[in-house]
Amino acid sequence: MLRTHSCGELRIDQAGEKVTLSGWVQRTRDKGGLMWVDLRDRYGITQLTFEEGVTDPNILETARKLGREFVIQAEGEVVERFSKNDKIPTGHIEIKVEKLIILNASETPPFVIEDDTDGGEDLRMKYRYLDLRRNEVRSKLELRSKLAIAVRNFLANEEFIEVETPVLIKSTPEGARDFVVPSRMNPGEFYALPQSPQTFKQLLMVSGFDRYFQIVKCFRDEDLRADRQPEFTQIDCEMSFVERDDVLDTFEGLTKHLFKTIKGVELSGFPRMDYADAMRLYGSDKPDTRFGMKFVELNDVAQNKGFNVFDQAELVVGICAKGCAEYTRKQLDALTDFVKRPQIGAKGLVYVKCNADGTYKSSVDKFYSQEDLAAWAQKAGAEAGDLMLVLSGPTHKTRSQMNELRLHMGTTLGLRDNNVFKPLWVVDFPLLEWDEETERFHAMHHPFTSALVEDLEKLDTNPGDVRANAYDLVINGVEIGGGSIRIHDQETQSLMFKHLGFTEEEAKAQFGFLLSAFQYGAPPHGGIAFGFDRLCAMFGGSETIRDYIAFPKNTSGRDVMIDSPAPIHDEQFKELGIKPA
Amino acid sequence: MLRTHSCGELRIDQAGEKVTLSGWVQRTRDKGGLMWVDLRDRYGITQLTFEEGVTDPNILETARKLGREFVIQAEGEVVERFSKNDKIPTGHIEIKVEKLIILNASETPPFVIEDDTDGGEDLRMKYRYLDLRRNEVRSKLELRSKLAIAVRNFLANEEFIEVETPVLIKSTPEGARDFVVPSRMNPGEFYALPQSPQTFKQLLMVSGFDRYFQIVKCFRDEDLRADRQPEFTQIDCEMSFVERDDVLDTFEGLTKHLFKTIKGVELSGFPRMDYADAMRLYGSDKPDTRFGMKFVELNDVAQNKGFNVFDQAELVVGICAKGCAEYTRKQLDALTDFVKRPQIGAKGLVYVKCNADGTYKSSVDKFYSQEDLAAWAQKAGAEAGDLMLVLSGPTHKTRSQMNELRLHMGTTLGLRDNNVFKPLWVVDFPLLEWDEETERFHAMHHPFTSALVEDLEKLDTNPGDVRANAYDLVINGVEIGGGSIRIHDQETQSLMFKHLGFTEEEAKAQFGFLLSAFQYGAPPHGGIAFGFDRLCAMFGGSETIRDYIAFPKNTSGRDVMIDSPAPIHDEQFKELGIKPA
Repeated sequence: MLRTHSCGELRIDQAGEKVTLSGWVQRTRDKGGLMWVDLRDRYGITQLTFEEGVTDPNILETARKLGREFVIQAEGEVVERFSKNDKIPTGHIEIKVEKLIILNASETPPFVIEDDTDGGEDLRMKYRYLDLRRNEVRSKLELRSKLAIAVRNFLANEEFIEVETPVLIKSTPEGARDFVVPSRMNPGEFYALPQSPQTFKQLLMVSGFDRYFQIVKCFRDEDLRADRQPEFTQIDCEMSFVERDDVLDTFEGLTKHLFKTIKGVELSGFPRMDYADAMRLYGSDKPDTRFGMKFVELNDVAQNKGFNVFDQAELVVGICAKGCAEYTRKQLDALTDFVKRPQIGAKGLVYVKCNADGTYKSSVDKFYSQEDLAAWAQKAGAEAGDLMLVLSGPTHKTRSQMNELRLHMGTTLGLRDNNVFKPLWVVDFPLLEWDEETERFHAMHHPFTSALVEDLEKLDTNPGDVRANAYDLVINGVEIGGGSIRIHDQETQSLMFKHLGFTEEEAKAQFGFLLSAFQYGAPPHGGIAFGFDRLCAMFGGSETIRDYIAFPKNTSGRDVMIDSPAPIHDEQFKELGIKPA
Repeated sequence: MLRTHSCGELRIDQAGEKVTLSGWVQRTRDKGGLMWVDLRDRYGITQLTFEEGVTDPNILETARKLGREFVIQAEGEVVERFSKNDKIPTGHIEIKVEKLIILNASETPPFVIEDDTDGGEDLRMKYRYLDLRRNEVRSKLELRSKLAIAVRNFLANEEFIEVETPVLIKSTPEGARDFVVPSRMNPGEFYALPQSPQTFKQLLMVSGFDRYFQIVKCFRDEDLRADRQPEFTQIDCEMSFVERDDVLDTFEGLTKHLFKTIKGVELSGFPRMDYADAMRLYGSDKPDTRFGMKFVELNDVAQNKGFNVFDQAELVVGICAKGCAEYTRKQLDALTDFVKRPQIGAKGLVYVKCNADGTYKSSVDKFYSQEDLAAWAQKAGAEAGDLMLVLSGPTHKTRSQMNELRLHMGTTLGLRDNNVFKPLWVVDFPLLEWDEETERFHAMHHPFTSALVEDLEKLDTNPGDVRANAYDLVINGVEIGGGSIRIHDQETQSLMFKHLGFTEEEAKAQFGFLLSAFQYGAPPHGGIAFGFDRLCAMFGGSETIRDYIAFPKNTSGRDVMIDSPAPIHDEQFKELGIKPA
């Protein structure tokens, strides 16, 4: 080793020892007679000292050549510092340098390697290897590594076997777009990269593996939003002979274990909420339950009083913002502007102030009496000092708008504390959703999800109403994972393919191996997948998963550091049996 | 859960308990009045009993319908067996069934689900999910899972951070053929799948990660041999501020830890051998050191005695097979046939029998006196009762032939015990090797490998003689892993690219990001990668890595179970901006 110790480990009781350290020059201070160098590595910072008249002049000369980010090796004695620094663990000592080697010089980096850097996003992505050198960034990836180890040890203790499923698989038309890989050995044919190991993990259940997991890269060729990556990582799991609550209990256990060991946070039981209730009370299938402000449906008290907008609306829905009755005209206008933004698309916002004196002041006073408004307030649990905000329109759209408004109010009122964690299981999702474009039902989750037994009879008559035995884990309004109890018999699976518009031939061509597997003793089974990038971001207290990926791609799917994707050679085209269109 | 216990856990002290088990029907025996079912899951086998006059007639009727591999749920009482079976842990009890549900019926599987199956390779690959149901196959993947966990925990304890590097990267002309992925968002451009995360892990060292590892899928579009897969898994590692022996010591530690915890085998120190010595003494860069039979060069004693074949040979080399002097004509002919096979390609084989009476009998008696042969024997350490086998020809080719013969003799004489493990570090590999086809030097390892400092001056004058600071871990003649100390400065790296025939522009286009990274303070670093599939096979005592891969591909790169690769839709071609050639 080019060091005897790291830059983070020397303490006062090592004073007098001869040591060798290696690392990067964080900064230098030259006071003429005395010179200091802060030497940095992953483990910390140690101060090196050079003193004119004491230090060998050649060494001093070398030291004076050092610039930021030079890589050096320094040998010397650990001595007690004259003025101690209590902010860093090595702050009581310094190294009196007796030997100094420049292992590698450095040009001035394009941005400062500090927690607060002056580098913009693009520059930091191009020089990602320097961005990763910043403590703040590296510590996020250290957290990721720790989380992965903790997940694996927990699941291994619960008898889960980690199995690597293949990356070169087969393209399926269902779901998102696949990345494909031309096969040189089988010209004209392609592999696809997996969007998830779904069918493979189900086959492992057919194989009797009983409990499977994998932390695995998955791929989706989608147009990228800010928080999506073409390649992402899942904690993928499957269990045999289970019912829904067995899966939920197991992964509640995992989640609690992670919060406890990694963050020192003890979570209590995870409430369970129907999808229908989540939509009704929060307008979202991933409600942020760190705060209340639940939706209150006001149709019965707000309609038929002559206000045309409400009368014609499918839904009139309100929330109560505690203590906001004093909101100014400007604040209320800002809220109206917020909901009218194109991304949200509401036509307007009705407010009701519950004044301190027990009266009400609303934007629709000419249609509603004080008694009318009192009835609203009563339904909403609004008291003197509170502010009610009301939206109306088609049910689904209005709920979704109110969800945005609720989250906005929660943020504004400081109700969404990043150090508070509120997990929630959302269950009983719809099995199918109608797709306007293709004019047919699609699987909301995927075609292998089972229906609730009591809803099966509606599959022919009212397919949109059939509930799936599917569940999502939501924490603080973020979807951490989702899964379902699967179909495990050939007949039901074939029926499902039929309902999803597959012909028998298509079903066989795409999923024949699974249908065939179900004929040879498939056990009841179910599973779940956690978005690992998102889980890391949640643990790190960040909004964006990109921070937790060592070498992320930008929203055009490019790695700007290595400049990929890139053209390939004619020779490669020829070998692969393809050409540019 | 559809069970209270697994099929492997009930014991005599649970007698009297009511339990529910779920699993597969391994076999049924019906003796009229009494019927038994062996119920199997991943954890074991438990016997179920049904008795006429005692068991509910409906249950008995259901039981009589059960076939092999049916999935059932059985409820009943644990009772002591009348005739105990000491071969299985549950052999002292059975379940008196009171409730029986068929969870899923099964057709007769295409082959028998037993350790000794009647299914051929092709059939078992097509129905891999049934092949995986066999204990023998599943246990190999359980071993793999255990090994992965043990590797991760060991490395995490040694301060290694696991970092996921990207799968969608950039194609490089150097080395083996890449799999490529057309980019829809960047038409005409392609990603490539990584052959290894080499440059990324080096960048992580530039980032100051200090110690990196990853168990990671890698990809090579090569024509497949029996023991190669287009996707394979590596334990990939890199360390900063290290010299060769630091890397060797760390991974010697890992290897010892794995052998101890997984196999209960204590390995002692790992010897280190120069590549040159390995070639001279074993004719291979991965010698099987479970047995001796080292090469003995005989040029000085065998040449210039009138035997033209030897006189003209660059190398005359022998091995001594202990105790084989009594080999028959037939046995010696078989050895001659062995070395003359086209795969080996020797022209012939010379033998010398060291008779019990102190005389020698050779196939070249007319050229050599007893004294001559005695001199050979003395060099080879051959004693009365031993057999010397001698080959001659061009050095490299002859060593390689003798290597095959030595391994063959080792196997024949039972010297290659699969329960004995002999690790060896082979070090100081050549940096470059001459490629006849392209008429230029190629990097033997990869272009990022550093040369031994003392050999650097030969880079211009005699590049083929320059040794690399590279090393392989070999166990029992199998290459388990390899690595090197890397180049860490831009100047040397540019020089290396030049020697490998890159123009400055090519080097910049392909590896500009790495050359640039080396300008900003790259630390000295080195690393290693272990072939994880091969490591698993070694631990499992198997020759072929395919047994340790859940869903392997055949030698045409096909997954015959899911029938992949497969054609894609016209729509996909269009979106990707490519068409069939």
